[in-house]
Amino acid sequence: MSLTKFFKFLTPKDKLFFPLFECGADNLVECAILLNKLFLVSEQSEKTSIMMRIKELEQKGDETTHTIFEELNKSFITPFDREDIHKLASSLDDVLDFINSSSQRIRYYKPKTLGNEFIELSELILQASREIHIAIFELKNLKKAYKIKDACIRINEIENQADDIYYHSLSQLYNNENDAIEVIKKKEILTALEEATDMAEDVADVLKSIIVKNA
Amino acid sequence: MSLTKFFKFLTPKDKLFFPLFECGADNLVECAILLNKLFLVSEQSEKTSIMMRIKELEQKGDETTHTIFEELNKSFITPFDREDIHKLASSLDDVLDFINSSSQRIRYYKPKTLGNEFIELSELILQASREIHIAIFELKNLKKAYKIKDACIRINEIENQADDIYYHSLSQLYNNENDAIEVIKKKEILTALEEATDMAEDVADVLKSIIVKNA
Amino acid sequence: MSLTKFFKFLTPKDKLFFPLFECGADNLVECAILLNKLFLVSEQSEKTSIMMRIKELEQKGDETTHTIFEELNKSFITPFDREDIHKLASSLDDVLDFINSSSQRIRYYKPKTLGNEFIELSELILQASREIHIAIFELKNLKKAYKIKDACIRINEIENQADDIYYHSLSQLYNNENDAIEVIKKKEILTALEEATDMAEDVADVLKSIIVKNA
Repeated sequence: MSLTKFFKFLTPKDKLFFPLFECGADNLVECAILLNKLFLVSEQSEKTSIMMRIKELEQKGDETTHTIFEELNKSFITPFDREDIHKLASSLDDVLDFINSSSQRIRYYKPKTLGNEFIELSELILQASREIHIAIFELKNLKKAYKIKDACIRINEIENQADDIYYHSLSQLYNNENDAIEVIKKKEILTALEEATDMAEDVADVLKSIIVKNA
Repeated sequence: MSLTKFFKFLTPKDKLFFPLFECGADNLVECAILLNKLFLVSEQSEKTSIMMRIKELEQKGDETTHTIFEELNKSFITPFDREDIHKLASSLDDVLDFINSSSQRIRYYKPKTLGNEFIELSELILQASREIHIAIFELKNLKKAYKIKDACIRINEIENQADDIYYHSLSQLYNNENDAIEVIKKKEILTALEEATDMAEDVADVLKSIIVKNA
Repeated sequence: MSLTKFFKFLTPKDKLFFPLFECGADNLVECAILLNKLFLVSEQSEKTSIMMRIKELEQKGDETTHTIFEELNKSFITPFDREDIHKLASSLDDVLDFINSSSQRIRYYKPKTLGNEFIELSELILQASREIHIAIFELKNLKKAYKIKDACIRINEIENQADDIYYHSLSQLYNNENDAIEVIKKKEILTALEEATDMAEDVADVLKSIIVKNA
């Protein structure tokens, strides 16, 4: 290892990791806005272009995650525990994955109708993504850790609401829809949506762990 | 950090973590007894009160898990590897989650009937929970590590049995039940039950790792 | 701890871990060849013996994984980060689990027919397993790390192809098959196959992390 490379290795990487996470959070909110819009537009061509755009953003998110992992492996000094940086990047990526997965399932399964419960779940995903955005932009300034904590509490509440809507929707679906294949399609889409909020809760868990250790 | 806080930070936290895990294990067994009872009672009102109680215990378990995580983040000296304490708390929580998930699915999906395979799986979950209870109460006394090891072996056997019952039940269900929506409902409940025993095996894996390192 | 045990504890375990991983990789390729064959043979008795053999190999893989974990807990010096050794063993085990799970689902669910998409997915699993095999046999010689990197890139491409086939197959299945229970059976088998390639991608992620840190 050259001396330059060695000193680079020792330099705190705050200026590196924070912008990467902020870029990831921007990407997540953009993706969640599109998912919500997907349930509101009626034109098929518009739906198709939204689904393509979500897939692109998911791939962009993958690249950010890989950059974070690579920098993490190359850095000796990190702003937080290495394991927490790893978990934060992975869990952010998971939220994005399930948003894309919801969108892909709609694209391929072609359910006949998608009721209000789908719009409501996509709104909760958007709310949770905005809270994640708030929290991540506060990470570089842990003096206001209460702002991160409050965002995490709201994410937990959002996940509970999503869970209720999920079970109620499945109850309705299983007991009122007679077309079994339509039941399967909708169940798979509802599950991907609900899992996106579960993953948002995982993000909140990592954030809480970071502030307990660092604030 | 004040000097008092600093010394508190350095104090071994055995007296803190063991009672928390024991409290978690008590909670788990209580929950597993209720799940088993859920398949044995016939009164709808009694079923409803059992399902509500399971949900309460799952939330109580969540609080214990969060307390363990918070204490872990605040403690410098821990009785076992930090990562193992984290994994043990998470995997215990996962067993509880799938017990509650089984119960919630019954509540919302309202399957017409639930055969013997459901009773059998709930009995295996109860057996696995009792073995976890035995092992966790031995953790503070690693001189009798063989007791923990034996409990782990029995948990692995229980998981294998659950796996067999699960696949046989699905085979019966898919090939004998004509109502596809009833098939979906029962499959989802069987899967949650089987996953509870998978999670019990994860608990056993962490316990085995703890005794290899510490006994 | 005796002095002999202490020195054993300090001895690098390269000669221990590499053969164990190579044994795991051999086992994986053998298992993937059998899975692919399962979709090509027509005799029921031959299918049954393949499914039994896959189950045996999965159990053999479990034993290798447990040996790696035990050695890891007993070793102080390891050829790579402990966490990476743990993740590599777990993710290899996961690929094997989903191969066996695909096979068991075919055995128990007895779907009427299995089309080309099943053959194609099993071929992709076999390709990914061969790439994993190449990469693992290069681990002891990190001077040719580019060989590992190339294998990982190919695994990622394979996973993308599997994902496309998976969604297209489900789209066909949901919109062309009228027998809902047949839909459920095939969907469950397709999902296990696709998850095997997901797990292969997890193996690639760990391998990439190892070469970034060590090459």
